[in-house]
Amino acid sequence: MQRRQFIKGASMLMAAGAIAPLAQANINSQVSASTAAFTSGKYRILALVFDDYETLDLHGPVEMLGHMPNTEIKLVAATEIVRSYQGPRVVADCLTTNTYDCDLLLIPGGMGTRTLINDLPLRQWLIEQVGRSQNVFTVCTGTALLAMTSVLNGRKATTNKMAFQWVTSLNANPQWQAKARWVFDGKFLTSSGVSAGTDAALFWVKHLHGAAEAQRIQTLTEYDWNADPLNDPYAAA
Amino acid sequence: MQRRQFIKGASMLMAAGAIAPLAQANINSQVSASTAAFTSGKYRILALVFDDYETLDLHGPVEMLGHMPNTEIKLVAATEIVRSYQGPRVVADCLTTNTYDCDLLLIPGGMGTRTLINDLPLRQWLIEQVGRSQNVFTVCTGTALLAMTSVLNGRKATTNKMAFQWVTSLNANPQWQAKARWVFDGKFLTSSGVSAGTDAALFWVKHLHGAAEAQRIQTLTEYDWNADPLNDPYAAA
Repeated sequence: MQRRQFIKGASMLMAAGAIAPLAQANINSQVSASTAAFTSGKYRILALVFDDYETLDLHGPVEMLGHMPNTEIKLVAATEIVRSYQGPRVVADCLTTNTYDCDLLLIPGGMGTRTLINDLPLRQWLIEQVGRSQNVFTVCTGTALLAMTSVLNGRKATTNKMAFQWVTSLNANPQWQAKARWVFDGKFLTSSGVSAGTDAALFWVKHLHGAAEAQRIQTLTEYDWNADPLNDPYAAA
Repeated sequence: MQRRQFIKGASMLMAAGAIAPLAQANINSQVSASTAAFTSGKYRILALVFDDYETLDLHGPVEMLGHMPNTEIKLVAATEIVRSYQGPRVVADCLTTNTYDCDLLLIPGGMGTRTLINDLPLRQWLIEQVGRSQNVFTVCTGTALLAMTSVLNGRKATTNKMAFQWVTSLNANPQWQAKARWVFDGKFLTSSGVSAGTDAALFWVKHLHGAAEAQRIQTLTEYDWNADPLNDPYAAA
């Protein structure tokens, strides 16, 4: 059997609502839909991923937030399998063909944002998804994706300090903070580059559950938490 | 068509060497084999993953090591899709049905190690894979998996400090270090809990490429590196 013929045959079977082939380029919402829904009663974290996302932007916060009680973390993407800038791939739990009610929308940064800022369907998805998210947490140049909408306008916000000129050039209306490990304003938590997201995540644990819970997770992960948002060793010049 | 019938039919098609369905329980080496080989001339990092691995144990080192020049990182697992303790899933690039020549074997820890220490096929795989690895880097309770073999015997080694009693009880023959952020002895780099792996990874960058390269990656990731292996705030009592 030719590969093309097999794929065509498999597609017909898939259309009947069965299972999907593992093909990076082929989105299959049947598989994702089965895992898209959050468990009732959980604190719902939805994390956007895209090719060339920066590994620690996502997984630092996932580590810390994932130790909070009664928490569920789902990945959302335009494709079912997404490759990080460092190589390893993750599996999306649901697709950006829909938006989802959630408690925290997590948006990492990375080299992928350099082209994604021009992705109009993603921009529209973000606007709608932000509307269905209780809070929004950006890490690093993830802030750039939000800056392409107007949702941060008038808000204090920060971003990666090596990319500060680029991100702030995209939108003059947020109150950009050149010296901040993270900023929380309105419903938006924005953090500085890469590792700052991990510090901001522990702030979020403290915000939701108190200092003792943040301390518990810090100890559990043997982490050296920079707990002061104004202690920013990489402040933009 | 019943689901069971479809799966049976799909399996028969798969046996013809075409494409694989996305089913967590179903290993398909056809898909993995296509990405198992490292690119010639790259620094080859092979990272073991398993269900309930601890997110940052893996992705902290992946972040830092992934910024080294000319480096390729592949995930290896017993199944094609693996779920972290925090929820998000990764895709294995190759399977533990084979061993692979590599420059650095990375072994994260996590709750999954509590049962994996009794997995005899994995233990045998580790012994063979360590033999094909130039260096081996364990994070957190990833050290427990190595401690179930004799490869660390006589070597200085460390592990997660909250799990120190458990890990050291598995094998009395390594020279266990109760106060160490990380230890490098022979071909083995072992680190303390979770975040310590990220510090140890930057040490490894320095070891391979010098202090300036470690500094470059530290700055790029806005990381507050604990660069002193004896500075261990979580030392075992």
